[in-house]
Amino acid sequence: MSTAAARRDLLRDRARAAGLDAVLVTRLVNVRYLTGFTGSNGALLLRADGDDVLGTDGRYTTQAGVQVPDLELLIDRATVPALAARAAHLGTRRLGFESHDVTVDGLRGLEQVLGAEATGGTVPELVSIRQAVEALRAIKDDGEIEALRRACAVADQALAELAAEGALRPGRTELQVGRELDARMLTLGAEAPSFETIVAAGANSAIPHHRPESTVLRDGDFLKLDFGATVDGYHSDMTRTLVLGHAADWQREVFALVAAAQAAGRAALAVGAEVTAVDAAAREVIAAAGHGEHFTHGLGHGVGLEIHEAPGIGPLGAGTLAAGMAVTVEPGVYLPGRGGVRIEDTLIVADDAPELLTLTSKELLVL
Amino acid sequence: MSTAAARRDLLRDRARAAGLDAVLVTRLVNVRYLTGFTGSNGALLLRADGDDVLGTDGRYTTQAGVQVPDLELLIDRATVPALAARAAHLGTRRLGFESHDVTVDGLRGLEQVLGAEATGGTVPELVSIRQAVEALRAIKDDGEIEALRRACAVADQALAELAAEGALRPGRTELQVGRELDARMLTLGAEAPSFETIVAAGANSAIPHHRPESTVLRDGDFLKLDFGATVDGYHSDMTRTLVLGHAADWQREVFALVAAAQAAGRAALAVGAEVTAVDAAAREVIAAAGHGEHFTHGLGHGVGLEIHEAPGIGPLGAGTLAAGMAVTVEPGVYLPGRGGVRIEDTLIVADDAPELLTLTSKELLVL
Repeated sequence: MSTAAARRDLLRDRARAAGLDAVLVTRLVNVRYLTGFTGSNGALLLRADGDDVLGTDGRYTTQAGVQVPDLELLIDRATVPALAARAAHLGTRRLGFESHDVTVDGLRGLEQVLGAEATGGTVPELVSIRQAVEALRAIKDDGEIEALRRACAVADQALAELAAEGALRPGRTELQVGRELDARMLTLGAEAPSFETIVAAGANSAIPHHRPESTVLRDGDFLKLDFGATVDGYHSDMTRTLVLGHAADWQREVFALVAAAQAAGRAALAVGAEVTAVDAAAREVIAAAGHGEHFTHGLGHGVGLEIHEAPGIGPLGAGTLAAGMAVTVEPGVYLPGRGGVRIEDTLIVADDAPELLTLTSKELLVL
Repeated sequence: MSTAAARRDLLRDRARAAGLDAVLVTRLVNVRYLTGFTGSNGALLLRADGDDVLGTDGRYTTQAGVQVPDLELLIDRATVPALAARAAHLGTRRLGFESHDVTVDGLRGLEQVLGAEATGGTVPELVSIRQAVEALRAIKDDGEIEALRRACAVADQALAELAAEGALRPGRTELQVGRELDARMLTLGAEAPSFETIVAAGANSAIPHHRPESTVLRDGDFLKLDFGATVDGYHSDMTRTLVLGHAADWQREVFALVAAAQAAGRAALAVGAEVTAVDAAAREVIAAAGHGEHFTHGLGHGVGLEIHEAPGIGPLGAGTLAAGMAVTVEPGVYLPGRGGVRIEDTLIVADDAPELLTLTSKELLVL
């Protein structure tokens, strides 16, 4: 059985347990996870008794046939309504749907189709499956972990090459560095950067999500790089903060503090740990040093087919960690107008110590 | 008045005309259009009597202050509910929302907030504004057209450089060519490729949306390249099909047919033209040659802050063209198992002839 088929069977079990005859999966990344289909338009009708149907449009007939040879294909420009009509024709009574993905207009369209196409006068009832597929996706299998390893390796190597070539030096701009990082990741085999690469120099490093601009890198600046590579659809995520030329005492202090908090966060990554406790392990280190107000975001997040996915690791999170979860640990301390440090790794939660995927050194690098 | 403020005033006029006290704009690309804010989380509360509020979270406090200095900022992790609460506190009676963007879960959340926060016992009524902002976005202003020109120029130059360097030659793979195109566009100043670059060699060129893979380019192959660059958020879109080594007669015939259809489509781009008529102008050329069934998609689409936006130009489209619309014209003929040709330009509809933004030659290039 293919990996995708096994995933569909897990969702099928949950659908049956919830008394659903079928589930309409519309969120594209979830369709990819459950089928392997990578086109830009697709939806899945998963049926409690098997015989699932993949819907897409005519642009993807060939691709869907190659990527998903074991499923019936339904080709229709109005993909989701067409799958809903199929569900109605099949006599579905309770149809699961993704209420976090279907829009208000989309729901109205589904209700119209179901009303018009229902057989025997029984209009299927639409029932939210909540984020059931996202919950499955939070636990990565071996193939997914291998893709994440490769994605992280591409980012590691791209940064190592740029540093070795002297590309990170005073006089260059944030934009130049960002574009070179992106281009190098593509050359090394990435499909795309994981997100808009963050390059923040000097005082800009105090902005957690600074967009690279024409700011020139100067001697003595912090240089914060937050970036990642996508490989086979899986995203890596890493932040390193280095110093150009020479590090001042205050920079070494902030860096050491964030490094200690990040180590505490990684140490807390254990199967069964509450996500709030993991966040607190790092946050308390920063708060104890009097910088609690300067750590303005959550500690981390799941990563996989999306750059941000379950589980969230923050003070307002809920739930516990499980083996196979891929997460980031990324505390930061941001001193407005002066500069900031963030250190971020991507790791896999495991029964023993977590596996570190982003292998670039976390020592303070002075270039 | 800033460009963004003028756009907000246009939407404000429509909101007033629809009897709305305020509009909650949640679609991120629309928020960018109406404010200039480019962060990854933001929403806008536009008020009929002015005093709009931009919502985002703590990661973007600094960025939002710089990009949108003229609006009040509301910083809250639960950005949309916080703006809805603000609307309720302001005594809003009819609140517009984007029903094509807000999910079923999102609507439930809004209703809860409005019910809990309503002042004086009056719960605001939620009213869809449909795709009002997308309709405004379909007509580009001078600044937008200039960004599109630059995005198209980057793509033109990247392809010219790769061709001149001999990067498009037998023995290389689709993936290599695609990654080099992407990397070159970044080097030339693109923020990102406009979409996943399509490189399709030989029989793969018959697949309209083929993903580059390890297929090796061979002498006599069609090589179809569909790609674009993003500059200042605006997307270019261009397809060229060339032949490696030498062109067979059938390849020249298909190419000439698509070129003629594409010219007919461009010639039909006029202010006031029905989009269905523009599609038909190109489609009839292909149908008359007996290849109607091999042109399996619409003729084109609007392009701007999104790679696909209004207006759609296809047999099922609706509406007419207006001056300032940025659209693609991209007929194709795909012969399964043999190969296919698509030729695509990005153009600006104008009172006189449309402005061609993608300037790469459309002669059959034999490399």
